[in-house]
Amino acid sequence: MSFNTFGKIFRFTTWGESHGPAIGCVVDGCPPNINISEQDVQKELNKRKPGQSKFTTQRKEDDKVNILSGTFEGKTTGTPISMIIYNKDMRSRDYETIKNKFRPGHADYTYFNKYGIRDYRGGGRQSARETASRVAAGAIAKKVLEKKIGLKYNVKGAVTQLGMLGCDKKKWDDKFISKNPFFCPDKSILKLWEKYLLSIRKAGSSCGAVIEIRARGVPTGLGAPIYSKLDMDLASAMMSINAVKGVNIGSGMNSAQFTGEQNSDEISQSGKKTKFNSNNAGGILGGISSGQEIVVSFAVKPTSSIISKRKTIDRFGKNTSITVKGRHDPCVGIRAVPIGEAMMHCVLLDHYLLNNAQCNS
Amino acid sequence: MSFNTFGKIFRFTTWGESHGPAIGCVVDGCPPNINISEQDVQKELNKRKPGQSKFTTQRKEDDKVNILSGTFEGKTTGTPISMIIYNKDMRSRDYETIKNKFRPGHADYTYFNKYGIRDYRGGGRQSARETASRVAAGAIAKKVLEKKIGLKYNVKGAVTQLGMLGCDKKKWDDKFISKNPFFCPDKSILKLWEKYLLSIRKAGSSCGAVIEIRARGVPTGLGAPIYSKLDMDLASAMMSINAVKGVNIGSGMNSAQFTGEQNSDEISQSGKKTKFNSNNAGGILGGISSGQEIVVSFAVKPTSSIISKRKTIDRFGKNTSITVKGRHDPCVGIRAVPIGEAMMHCVLLDHYLLNNAQCNS
Amino acid sequence: MSFNTFGKIFRFTTWGESHGPAIGCVVDGCPPNINISEQDVQKELNKRKPGQSKFTTQRKEDDKVNILSGTFEGKTTGTPISMIIYNKDMRSRDYETIKNKFRPGHADYTYFNKYGIRDYRGGGRQSARETASRVAAGAIAKKVLEKKIGLKYNVKGAVTQLGMLGCDKKKWDDKFISKNPFFCPDKSILKLWEKYLLSIRKAGSSCGAVIEIRARGVPTGLGAPIYSKLDMDLASAMMSINAVKGVNIGSGMNSAQFTGEQNSDEISQSGKKTKFNSNNAGGILGGISSGQEIVVSFAVKPTSSIISKRKTIDRFGKNTSITVKGRHDPCVGIRAVPIGEAMMHCVLLDHYLLNNAQCNS
Amino acid sequence: MSFNTFGKIFRFTTWGESHGPAIGCVVDGCPPNINISEQDVQKELNKRKPGQSKFTTQRKEDDKVNILSGTFEGKTTGTPISMIIYNKDMRSRDYETIKNKFRPGHADYTYFNKYGIRDYRGGGRQSARETASRVAAGAIAKKVLEKKIGLKYNVKGAVTQLGMLGCDKKKWDDKFISKNPFFCPDKSILKLWEKYLLSIRKAGSSCGAVIEIRARGVPTGLGAPIYSKLDMDLASAMMSINAVKGVNIGSGMNSAQFTGEQNSDEISQSGKKTKFNSNNAGGILGGISSGQEIVVSFAVKPTSSIISKRKTIDRFGKNTSITVKGRHDPCVGIRAVPIGEAMMHCVLLDHYLLNNAQCNS
Repeated sequence: MSFNTFGKIFRFTTWGESHGPAIGCVVDGCPPNINISEQDVQKELNKRKPGQSKFTTQRKEDDKVNILSGTFEGKTTGTPISMIIYNKDMRSRDYETIKNKFRPGHADYTYFNKYGIRDYRGGGRQSARETASRVAAGAIAKKVLEKKIGLKYNVKGAVTQLGMLGCDKKKWDDKFISKNPFFCPDKSILKLWEKYLLSIRKAGSSCGAVIEIRARGVPTGLGAPIYSKLDMDLASAMMSINAVKGVNIGSGMNSAQFTGEQNSDEISQSGKKTKFNSNNAGGILGGISSGQEIVVSFAVKPTSSIISKRKTIDRFGKNTSITVKGRHDPCVGIRAVPIGEAMMHCVLLDHYLLNNAQCNS
Repeated sequence: MSFNTFGKIFRFTTWGESHGPAIGCVVDGCPPNINISEQDVQKELNKRKPGQSKFTTQRKEDDKVNILSGTFEGKTTGTPISMIIYNKDMRSRDYETIKNKFRPGHADYTYFNKYGIRDYRGGGRQSARETASRVAAGAIAKKVLEKKIGLKYNVKGAVTQLGMLGCDKKKWDDKFISKNPFFCPDKSILKLWEKYLLSIRKAGSSCGAVIEIRARGVPTGLGAPIYSKLDMDLASAMMSINAVKGVNIGSGMNSAQFTGEQNSDEISQSGKKTKFNSNNAGGILGGISSGQEIVVSFAVKPTSSIISKRKTIDRFGKNTSITVKGRHDPCVGIRAVPIGEAMMHCVLLDHYLLNNAQCNS
Repeated sequence: MSFNTFGKIFRFTTWGESHGPAIGCVVDGCPPNINISEQDVQKELNKRKPGQSKFTTQRKEDDKVNILSGTFEGKTTGTPISMIIYNKDMRSRDYETIKNKFRPGHADYTYFNKYGIRDYRGGGRQSARETASRVAAGAIAKKVLEKKIGLKYNVKGAVTQLGMLGCDKKKWDDKFISKNPFFCPDKSILKLWEKYLLSIRKAGSSCGAVIEIRARGVPTGLGAPIYSKLDMDLASAMMSINAVKGVNIGSGMNSAQFTGEQNSDEISQSGKKTKFNSNNAGGILGGISSGQEIVVSFAVKPTSSIISKRKTIDRFGKNTSITVKGRHDPCVGIRAVPIGEAMMHCVLLDHYLLNNAQCNS
Repeated sequence: MSFNTFGKIFRFTTWGESHGPAIGCVVDGCPPNINISEQDVQKELNKRKPGQSKFTTQRKEDDKVNILSGTFEGKTTGTPISMIIYNKDMRSRDYETIKNKFRPGHADYTYFNKYGIRDYRGGGRQSARETASRVAAGAIAKKVLEKKIGLKYNVKGAVTQLGMLGCDKKKWDDKFISKNPFFCPDKSILKLWEKYLLSIRKAGSSCGAVIEIRARGVPTGLGAPIYSKLDMDLASAMMSINAVKGVNIGSGMNSAQFTGEQNSDEISQSGKKTKFNSNNAGGILGGISSGQEIVVSFAVKPTSSIISKRKTIDRFGKNTSITVKGRHDPCVGIRAVPIGEAMMHCVLLDHYLLNNAQCNS
């Protein structure tokens, strides 16, 4: 039971508000003797950092991380790893004019009704700024899995749909993803996406996206039925990301349209290697990894902070309207890619350790 | 941390295999002084029971529940409620011929690889028979919420898509749902579905489905950011159901296609009542219930046990093929409706109690 | 978070009331492929069973256990193990006369005030009958540890003090413990104890006891600072046993009287073997096992059900008095020995698995 | 499941090593709208701070706390409260000479064997420095309970035994406790203690102590059987404090010597007030608070860092000896008083919230 902690054995607790002095996380349950440096974490944080292209918010966030505990002479010691990121470039005054209004699509209304108090500056705790902490935790999980599993372990995320424009997943190219500001895996659609997003941005509007995360080299046997199923925990992980409204494992919602013949993945053996002839299951059967590629996708709704005037109410129950200014991403989905990757690393490491506990002792 | 337990404060632990002597669950954290009888639970179990129409498996399961603890003179006492359902009509011999083969689409391969042992009779623990225990737990949660919230609290599930055939959700009719064996909410499509499913069944094939669960009368303020978000826990709950591959909250995956203007639900006040002018959010903002209808949908993949010959391997790593006989549902999604309702009740009660703990004390 | 569940990875959930139809427990997180039979569990339950000598209650409890799930062909499968013990020889009428009174020293008053309802028959859930479930869970843990660690793993408990009569712990004799109805480790004091307890029993009175549990062959490294310390979890485990009021690790409360020189155990190496020259620490340093014998002792208060008339109040707030008849143990501490052993097994296995998860993967 | 987190609903996670840049904690589950300032926390930290008299270590630790999140305009918001204390006056070089040796009575040996790595500077994570974080968390819990319960809520701890010298508990004087550096409740013994401890200190030796914590104004009904008993969680809380080896509830270990007549507390009613005629139970029956004073005591072993030469081994398995220099408390038990109080606050608040969740909704 924990409000701000994620995980079972490898657990991280995040804290901090958008316009407070700092945000951070405490990573617990990390195996000892893993090489970790601030650079390792910074590298992942930089992928999520805003202000890197004209397609994301122009807010400057250094997102410089400090490790305050849990390592000794460059290695983890098995004790909690505390990481802190100081907030900078906060313009709290931007929020003064809307402090008594509830922004549609945001959690202003629900936070205020639940807690009877809310930090309105930049959304406070509801801000997606919290996700930087997850990326930091994910960087640690990644290092552990790379050491435990080896080089074949690899997680890669991409945007596969921008607004109504889907990419061709058959053209998925890992290397290309790292080279464009959209985390787009399909070179042939990039130009169209650029044009589309610029028009959205100019209009002060926003659009949604679908993100897909693929994990390769994951051992068979991760995930524990019934209520620690790997897909259950991945759904939970992805749905916890701000603005996510849907999660698919493998063929996901599409599997409803299939017949049994179309859906169930046949199995074959070739030497020592077991192969599935398709991967509708997304690498998970009965909540346990099958050794195939793990495939998770999720939808991110369009940024709710848009320039159009919207109807809403204020905290005193009066009808009013609102126009949200400030510096916002036209598509928050783009920056969700490194967050989804981080959550994938964390869930997989957690289940890796859990499987060791029960089954490999 | 728990393999076979679901929930935080209102928690249930399920146990039992498909062909063992019994299955059951222990419900913990239930508030005291709630009227509960075996009939209350039985009523819900009967909705899930197979053999009730020609559209579900002909296997007979009485699913008669006994309450062994936790109540006194018809009321809950605050102590754990243990419920047991004895297994009947098991034909374990049906499984002798396939005991060394891994059925495609089932978890045979992953269970065996994880645990090094598996109960092959009827799928053992991986069988959807486990879901009867959830329905029993959900019956208790429902009674508690009906007492705490009152009559306006109401959860209703339906099949909204059968294979490729979607219904018209605007025609959703609660009463009609209870009167047809498909839990179909749209009278106009029923005939078509009957015809379709009979053809599927005759062919020894199967199809998938989409189920939607709606909860009304849910108070504002349930759900606790960041890692106990209501939508996160609902996604987790639904994804834990056998054969579920995708989960949506409100507009779900579709929200990726929206612009900010289309997506964010405007708010208005009318007297004491706050209203949202649309419900793309599915009643949840920032992980907290907004007082609107909670809407969750999920996809159930087609039954993997089909009559067609499928390629697979055996436990010794040999290529082979398999034909699954026995009595199977042509669409397991149909019987997932009461299961989804049960999980909705359990998650909502859990968060109701959690919210009382932190915010209403 | 769990009201009726104990443990982190190896977890058991108990349920049932003293005079309900049955009691039982669900053991989760057990490693697969461990040989377990009902006889293995029954053997441990028989040690706790009442009515075995004139020094315990004459109530007959068969305590016959059935395993309902989690094993297949005699081996654990990694799925939850459900065990049930049907209640027999219940004389609920014995309790009719006191159903509105709160027995001093019992939890009648607090249960009623907390829950607003209580099952007064035999104490309901507060009855020490619940401990049979723990012994069953402990029997499973013992089997797992015996397989994982081997024959050197051995847990032995004894009564070291009966009322005011302490035994000479230097004369501790494992074999003698099993041969006398007091679990007395010191042959020289047995006669005195017999005489003493018979006089207590004749007087309709009762006395307290101190129990000591020793675990040998426990590997170094079990226990995880800061809030999963091995001693912390052992204290928690023993304090959860009915009527326990104090817990010591090693020298325990006595260590307050020592100087640093007297207390800290010097270390020496002899070949490959590390030895501590004394064991005031009780085998635990900084919350982690040191490889020495783990020594835990705890005090059990005297049975509160005594024949003397005692002042109390009834549920309507009226002053009154009470005389508790029925069949009671003159010293409940005696039967706490197998319970303490069971809790030791469960805590050690839990930490064994936890240590594998984080440190041996 | 959590290595460095304590609590169920009101939870705190601590992090940091003795000689790292900082230590801190994250408090989660705190109710909203509670006034909290850094001064409130600082006040409690100052009670634990070393260097305040000649009876404690002369190490200077400012222990200045910063609140980094979770409050807004002086009130809690229901989001996680992150607190940080920067480390100062660290003399890591003091530890260079002993970095390869295992100090007897310390956890050097067990940490190294468990993790294969350890931060030897000042004990790293095993250092009692971690307890400052608990005191900070306890300060928050205290504020919440004072608001929720009111002024009658009051927790007071004292040293009741110093080495072999017990005080007279009948002379317990709350006000006197706050005025002497020993947290001694009995004015008549203070002189003797001063003399005794100075002699211990001069000899470079150390002594143990017994601490007693009393909580008044605690409502009836806190604590949830079976495995969330209030006494169980208090035992767990106190045993988790560094150097604690034994815990008593009420009469504790002494209850073993009592007869049933002596032990069970008679109950009487006087108007609206229920009274127990004695308090051997320490205010807890069946794991639930009875409304009486909660009384917990625990033994702290003597400081293991003493000037005498002690036999030990080094990390290479060689026999050697060690003399621990540096600045150490002659009796660490004294500074355990505010820590015990803090843990009492945290456990009580946790159960207060838990009871609201299940029983007061």
